[in-house]
Amino acid sequence: MIKLYHVPLSPFCRKVRLVLAEKRLEVDLVEERYWERDPDFLRRNPAGKVPVIRIDGMQIGESSAICEYLEETYPTPALLPQDPKERAEVRRLVGWFDDTFFRQVTVNVLYERVNKKITKSGYPDSRAVKQGLQATRFHLDYMTQLLDQRRWLAGDVMTLADFTAAAHLSCLDYTSDVDWHRSAAVKDWYAKIKSRPAFRGLLADQVAGFIPPAHYADLDF
Amino acid sequence: MIKLYHVPLSPFCRKVRLVLAEKRLEVDLVEERYWERDPDFLRRNPAGKVPVIRIDGMQIGESSAICEYLEETYPTPALLPQDPKERAEVRRLVGWFDDTFFRQVTVNVLYERVNKKITKSGYPDSRAVKQGLQATRFHLDYMTQLLDQRRWLAGDVMTLADFTAAAHLSCLDYTSDVDWHRSAAVKDWYAKIKSRPAFRGLLADQVAGFIPPAHYADLDF
Repeated sequence: MIKLYHVPLSPFCRKVRLVLAEKRLEVDLVEERYWERDPDFLRRNPAGKVPVIRIDGMQIGESSAICEYLEETYPTPALLPQDPKERAEVRRLVGWFDDTFFRQVTVNVLYERVNKKITKSGYPDSRAVKQGLQATRFHLDYMTQLLDQRRWLAGDVMTLADFTAAAHLSCLDYTSDVDWHRSAAVKDWYAKIKSRPAFRGLLADQVAGFIPPAHYADLDF
Repeated sequence: MIKLYHVPLSPFCRKVRLVLAEKRLEVDLVEERYWERDPDFLRRNPAGKVPVIRIDGMQIGESSAICEYLEETYPTPALLPQDPKERAEVRRLVGWFDDTFFRQVTVNVLYERVNKKITKSGYPDSRAVKQGLQATRFHLDYMTQLLDQRRWLAGDVMTLADFTAAAHLSCLDYTSDVDWHRSAAVKDWYAKIKSRPAFRGLLADQVAGFIPPAHYADLDF
């Protein structure tokens, strides 16, 4: 059985969980409190972070390496198009969310509000949170711009770009930090992806000390 | 002609330059002072960062998307192996350098010492620099451990993992922040990769206000 070392509110772990579920690969989830730096975990995984997957007799770290491996080894259903130019656009957007969105939004909002409390590493910096929430608006507007011209974020079919974006937004939504009134296009897109069976596991997540809002698991939010 | 928007001391831009050069693709380099947020650049590239490439009638941002596109479209010489497991190990190491090494070392050393001066955004934080230099030792030791068992970082052939690591180390070497005495294995590996024709462009870089040490461009350092 595939084993995934993860934490529930990590967008990178959620991205991998969505890809596994969409490809109907059963997985044994192991919560790894990576910040406690367990020597056994660090020996197996010197980067000291999650996600890490054990699959097909090997271990892989880095969410991008994991997703590319899953796509190459379990190609159905495909989450990357065949055409190199279309693949480039998907990967550009994966990078957009995993780097730009992550640095501007996730680090400032989720890490300040949730991770600092869980890892007992201080109190939220309200300036950072404010800056992060401000950036959320820029990102929702950018997604709106894309969805005005496309059915899904990278084109006319659902791809890894959509799962990556949804993984990031779903973490913020858990703490009620997405203003779904800002964009009907983004809300519609999220409703479509949230109603997929692959999303169920994420919607059932419960993080001690943080109760999600009622709309979090509601498909008609 | 391919056009690459870049800055000389960015490890992500250097990685792309190395891949282009190794694949013998001629490129027109355009220095983009992305921190000045030129409206024209931002309109074409809302992430506001480099590298961005113009190639085959399209534009791609995010170094990982660019490198995967180049590998798919210009497969010779190959910088990713054929076997999915070996590819996963290459991509894991690309992620290791682009994320773990970058956050622990590059941000603390290069960004504090060089980028803050160039972008006129303050003075180096000496605690961050110290922490970054400390982390450099951990990373050199990790590379040594890999190179004790392999000819190149990800296995027995040279791959994108080597170019990624060399791109990061070469930026630090420009400011004399790599202790080459720490590991003979890493020094030998870097000497091999540095002597490739693909490396010449990087060794000729000159950044105003920062003079590289004599050994920077010396193949017998």
